[in-house]
Amino acid sequence: MTIGAIAKEAGVSVPTVSRVLNGRSDVAPQTRARVEELLRRRGYRRRPSRSRTRARLIDLVFPDLDSPWAVEILRGVEDVTHAAGVGTVVSATHRRAEPARQWLHNLRARASDGVILVTSTLESPLLTELQRHDIPLVAVDPVGGPTLDAPTIGATNWAGGLAAMEHVLALGHRRIAIIAGPPEVLCSRARLDGYRAALAAAGVDSREVPVKEGDFSNQSGFDCARALLSMAPEPPTAIVASSDQMAFGAYEALRQRGLRIPDDITVVGFDDLPESRWSSPPLTTVRQPLAEMGALAARTVLRLAAGEDVDSPRVELATSLIERESSAPPARA
Amino acid sequence: MTIGAIAKEAGVSVPTVSRVLNGRSDVAPQTRARVEELLRRRGYRRRPSRSRTRARLIDLVFPDLDSPWAVEILRGVEDVTHAAGVGTVVSATHRRAEPARQWLHNLRARASDGVILVTSTLESPLLTELQRHDIPLVAVDPVGGPTLDAPTIGATNWAGGLAAMEHVLALGHRRIAIIAGPPEVLCSRARLDGYRAALAAAGVDSREVPVKEGDFSNQSGFDCARALLSMAPEPPTAIVASSDQMAFGAYEALRQRGLRIPDDITVVGFDDLPESRWSSPPLTTVRQPLAEMGALAARTVLRLAAGEDVDSPRVELATSLIERESSAPPARA
Repeated sequence: MTIGAIAKEAGVSVPTVSRVLNGRSDVAPQTRARVEELLRRRGYRRRPSRSRTRARLIDLVFPDLDSPWAVEILRGVEDVTHAAGVGTVVSATHRRAEPARQWLHNLRARASDGVILVTSTLESPLLTELQRHDIPLVAVDPVGGPTLDAPTIGATNWAGGLAAMEHVLALGHRRIAIIAGPPEVLCSRARLDGYRAALAAAGVDSREVPVKEGDFSNQSGFDCARALLSMAPEPPTAIVASSDQMAFGAYEALRQRGLRIPDDITVVGFDDLPESRWSSPPLTTVRQPLAEMGALAARTVLRLAAGEDVDSPRVELATSLIERESSAPPARA
Repeated sequence: MTIGAIAKEAGVSVPTVSRVLNGRSDVAPQTRARVEELLRRRGYRRRPSRSRTRARLIDLVFPDLDSPWAVEILRGVEDVTHAAGVGTVVSATHRRAEPARQWLHNLRARASDGVILVTSTLESPLLTELQRHDIPLVAVDPVGGPTLDAPTIGATNWAGGLAAMEHVLALGHRRIAIIAGPPEVLCSRARLDGYRAALAAAGVDSREVPVKEGDFSNQSGFDCARALLSMAPEPPTAIVASSDQMAFGAYEALRQRGLRIPDDITVVGFDDLPESRWSSPPLTTVRQPLAEMGALAARTVLRLAAGEDVDSPRVELATSLIERESSAPPARA
């Protein structure tokens, strides 16, 4: 009894059945009732016998393996899968379409029990194929819009952005500049909106606050910081960056200008990568619980693979401000 | 025809047959000839039919997933396996014995084609079991001594240590301190010997050069640097560290002392992690080609899995000195 057969019998699409299975709310109540009744009547369970006969596998897919946060997420996933006796197959799609298709072929051949996609744009046809083959899917901080029909796990990016900017404002800064992440990524839009909410609450017109968009990388943070230092009539006294790597890029731009952190300028990041504790000076940042996000994604995909429901189609784990030495009140003019 | 049957017929041990298959030199010529003849006569090939019937997998095993160089090695491995249509199962043994046994059980159940061990001490019984089941094994920078009967891949650690110390000496430093890695790890012994060879060539008595041993971590570099700054009657003008993370720990110890890099003190690392380019100041270090080491390990294990020979039981990839801004001539006293 496949998901396709259930869909046909219920007279709905495969994605609709998938949405019901994934506990999503965007299904009409009577449709949900009809599908659930049919799933029960046909005794549908996702791949029930698999785990008894062979070692199980899940797939963890990154766009690229060039980020220090990749290993944080991997560590969280592996902690859970290791304890469950499940192997974790790690792939990078390398932002190319053809290898992704080859990857799907391999995924099916090795009979993976489920997929965790990290900040990853799989092409829509591949996502549809994953669904058609009834392979459970969980996304961590997805780029995707409303078409991604899978449970997603993120951090409270908006609240994190709010906390970062509130901290900078509470120190007394008013000439503030922002290095934002790429606007097509949902989490960077949420962080930026959080920054702006804090500015508005403090009575600062956010149109007066310059914003440069980076791509989360060190180099983009360096480039954005250089541009921000040149554009203003007066340089900012604080830079708020939407990733630690961009904050480190800004550190280097400031060092090259002879500006000291935090004496001359405050820098705040976002992520709390392990090296943030060891930058010079240690970075004030917003902690994203990356390992916990990975662990929760792994638990969720294993539940789906076991035919169990998930509690919520979208979970956001709490962020928290970590105050270190890169932030201080502005110097007296 | 298993490796065990070949060993029995040849009247030798399983590890001996494995050594012959792995191209190692530590087998008596007449024994090698007898085993090779038997392998040929019996038409022995490692797991020849596997790849035609199912998606292939290799296992990549780290002691822990807490190091930024783990993702570098993983990237190199994944580049090769991805292109070969092979999945990479990533595990951490977490330095515990029982999970390692569970891991071996899972490894066999999923019929992994081979194993890459990274700086990892698998217990000797587990290694023996891997051999008995004829699972190809490649080690990257192994801790193990002569009992590890597998091709190993490393970097030219001794030459790298030599180059780092030669650089510091050429800048004019003579009051030099060393933060070494753990002595039980072969690569840290090689780096330290390289440092000492450069000191000897420059006529510096290496007994006069203080050495503190860390464990490659940031915290240990911080602790060692603090100890080195306190112990000498005069503080060193240069610190040479056997990992970038220990160098970053030293950065923080120096910053807390109000010492500027490189004006007051030179720091040199080892690894060339991606963040070395973005530390403040950017770190002079010895580049270990971690991704290339991972890629070579993957190619080697895939060759062994295909029943092919390896060219050499031990390959060391070249290191190179990367000069950045953390090293400069000593300040005039």
